[in-house]
Amino acid sequence: MPTRLSAGKWQRLRSLTDGQGRFKMMAIDQRDSMREAIRRKLGEIPKDEMFRHVAKVKELVVKHLSRLSTATLTDPVYGYPYSIQHLPPQVGLLLAYEESPPERVDVNGRKERRATLIEDWSVEKAQRAGADAIKLLVHYRPDASKETCLWQQEVVRRVGEECQRYDMPFLLEFTGYDLTPGETKTAEYAQRRPQIVIESVREFSKPEYGVDILKVEFPADLKFTKEFASGAFDRKERPSVYGLEEVKEYCRQLNEASGTPWVILSAGVEIEEFLVQVEIATEAGASGFLCGRAIWKGVLDHFPNEAKMEEWLATEGVYNFVRANAYAETAKPWFEHKKFGGQVELAGKDPTWFSDYAPPAAVGVR
Amino acid sequence: MPTRLSAGKWQRLRSLTDGQGRFKMMAIDQRDSMREAIRRKLGEIPKDEMFRHVAKVKELVVKHLSRLSTATLTDPVYGYPYSIQHLPPQVGLLLAYEESPPERVDVNGRKERRATLIEDWSVEKAQRAGADAIKLLVHYRPDASKETCLWQQEVVRRVGEECQRYDMPFLLEFTGYDLTPGETKTAEYAQRRPQIVIESVREFSKPEYGVDILKVEFPADLKFTKEFASGAFDRKERPSVYGLEEVKEYCRQLNEASGTPWVILSAGVEIEEFLVQVEIATEAGASGFLCGRAIWKGVLDHFPNEAKMEEWLATEGVYNFVRANAYAETAKPWFEHKKFGGQVELAGKDPTWFSDYAPPAAVGVR
Repeated sequence: MPTRLSAGKWQRLRSLTDGQGRFKMMAIDQRDSMREAIRRKLGEIPKDEMFRHVAKVKELVVKHLSRLSTATLTDPVYGYPYSIQHLPPQVGLLLAYEESPPERVDVNGRKERRATLIEDWSVEKAQRAGADAIKLLVHYRPDASKETCLWQQEVVRRVGEECQRYDMPFLLEFTGYDLTPGETKTAEYAQRRPQIVIESVREFSKPEYGVDILKVEFPADLKFTKEFASGAFDRKERPSVYGLEEVKEYCRQLNEASGTPWVILSAGVEIEEFLVQVEIATEAGASGFLCGRAIWKGVLDHFPNEAKMEEWLATEGVYNFVRANAYAETAKPWFEHKKFGGQVELAGKDPTWFSDYAPPAAVGVR
Repeated sequence: MPTRLSAGKWQRLRSLTDGQGRFKMMAIDQRDSMREAIRRKLGEIPKDEMFRHVAKVKELVVKHLSRLSTATLTDPVYGYPYSIQHLPPQVGLLLAYEESPPERVDVNGRKERRATLIEDWSVEKAQRAGADAIKLLVHYRPDASKETCLWQQEVVRRVGEECQRYDMPFLLEFTGYDLTPGETKTAEYAQRRPQIVIESVREFSKPEYGVDILKVEFPADLKFTKEFASGAFDRKERPSVYGLEEVKEYCRQLNEASGTPWVILSAGVEIEEFLVQVEIATEAGASGFLCGRAIWKGVLDHFPNEAKMEEWLATEGVYNFVRANAYAETAKPWFEHKKFGGQVELAGKDPTWFSDYAPPAAVGVR
């Protein structure tokens, strides 16, 4: 029996993919990390100057690379207002909901992160503005304090409900982070990473969160694999904690744990490493990628020289993207995920399906 | 100075066009005329059987031809629920708002038409469902009774306000019709047609209606031109009431009168006639077409043989569409219409543009 999907989720999910239902999406919604990169070049600068620089970088990336994406994710502050004239009409649009950076809270000597939402922004406004999906990032460590885990879960649940109310696709991204300085770069963390990622996937696959697409970290650190530990990606030697066959098994476990289609994120690794991740992830059942820095971060080497930035994007940037797309050609179409089983139809196809197609009454307003 | 457009109207208008801002859109939202065509083949049939037939024809047309359109217009009753799985992700979606057929009212012995809206349907629901624009058809004769003209204007104004409220593009279609039987097929009407069309364009260009795109009848009847009156399109000879040079001048006047980008509709003429219309209209400043029957009506000759219908669509239908697209290659990009002057930017680009990006309080709910 075909799975039934509501009109707004279905129509918009489709608009994020290529003709075969695969996600080849670009993320250019970075804020805190991009301000940081600009600060490394220019030092401390006034706020409005920083605003113009960030908006410009985003504009140039969209201008050159969005056409290669099936959908582009940007933010409503620096991104959307300056970039949309360059977004090709056939490319889908995702808008970010979380504030960047997140709040940082000291808990027993560890720096835990808690997501907050952009003030005065909402799913309703994103829908009015023409977005095809809402993206939320939460930094998530299942081994953080219970308070922090509950906080993050509550934010996800709340956004899931808001998306439900407006019948908008909800893309949830979660990434691990340093609870103690430098932690995520260690061999010990690399070893724990599969479990951390898979446990998070399991958590946010619960139907109560209403997630439509999971944006997932690669569930292992390829730099610590037997095959690449000698410095294949960055000429730095590391201990090996697992081999590629084990990594593939983690990806299969992740796929098994995921209750909804999932895509892989790049977390700023180099493009060569990302391509291997995409290959292994799609082989295990990922439906594509939502990739940011791995594709375009090289442009920042040329900042603030706009001509050089455009030249880099039109050559190296395009080359990176074309390769990522090629690696995603074998990704699993979203509607073939076990959640949908290959066949989707409208929830309610009778001649008056739209009679009760309305948001539930808002809490406290009935 | 660039023209400022609100986020939802801008992002969605763009999604209806090709990369150059031209509309090559397909209409498959016909209801009354399609039921009539099916009745001619099958006679009177039960309502649910009719429903299945209409839904199936629409599904097949979308399956084969939507991929050639920059956007597809369908209706929420028979069209949307059965067709959207065939709508390619990169193609825009317009949904119809008016009931079909309209009400018919006797006024001084003439049959006047008055638009009503589909019950329980709304701009809000169309937006939730992922539509990129709202389409409203009003049958309009400036020489109808004052009551009927005011009725039609009021419906347009009301839908314009509703679109404004949800920041949705509003595409208005108006067509002339028989006030007395057979009237619009006469030489006398052909002669009056330029004035009727241009006067209607002038009326609905008033800002109070909030129209973003006008879907316009060709402002003359090519069958009554000196050049084609000998039966070029249908082997039927007719008197000539004007020549092509005059017709081109009417199109220029229409373009002058239009306060917003306009596209041409086909009103069921044969494809050869429609191609001439598209050529002349785009030369005068049209931004493309929204074409229905001229492209796909031949499929109904093969109804209800589905295999033959698909074969016709995949060959003749595709050929018709490809030619129409070629003729629209010189259409005026929508943002180059004098309303926009070539440059558009977001209304409010400051870092908190979205703070007050919200619908005005609903009337009676404040």
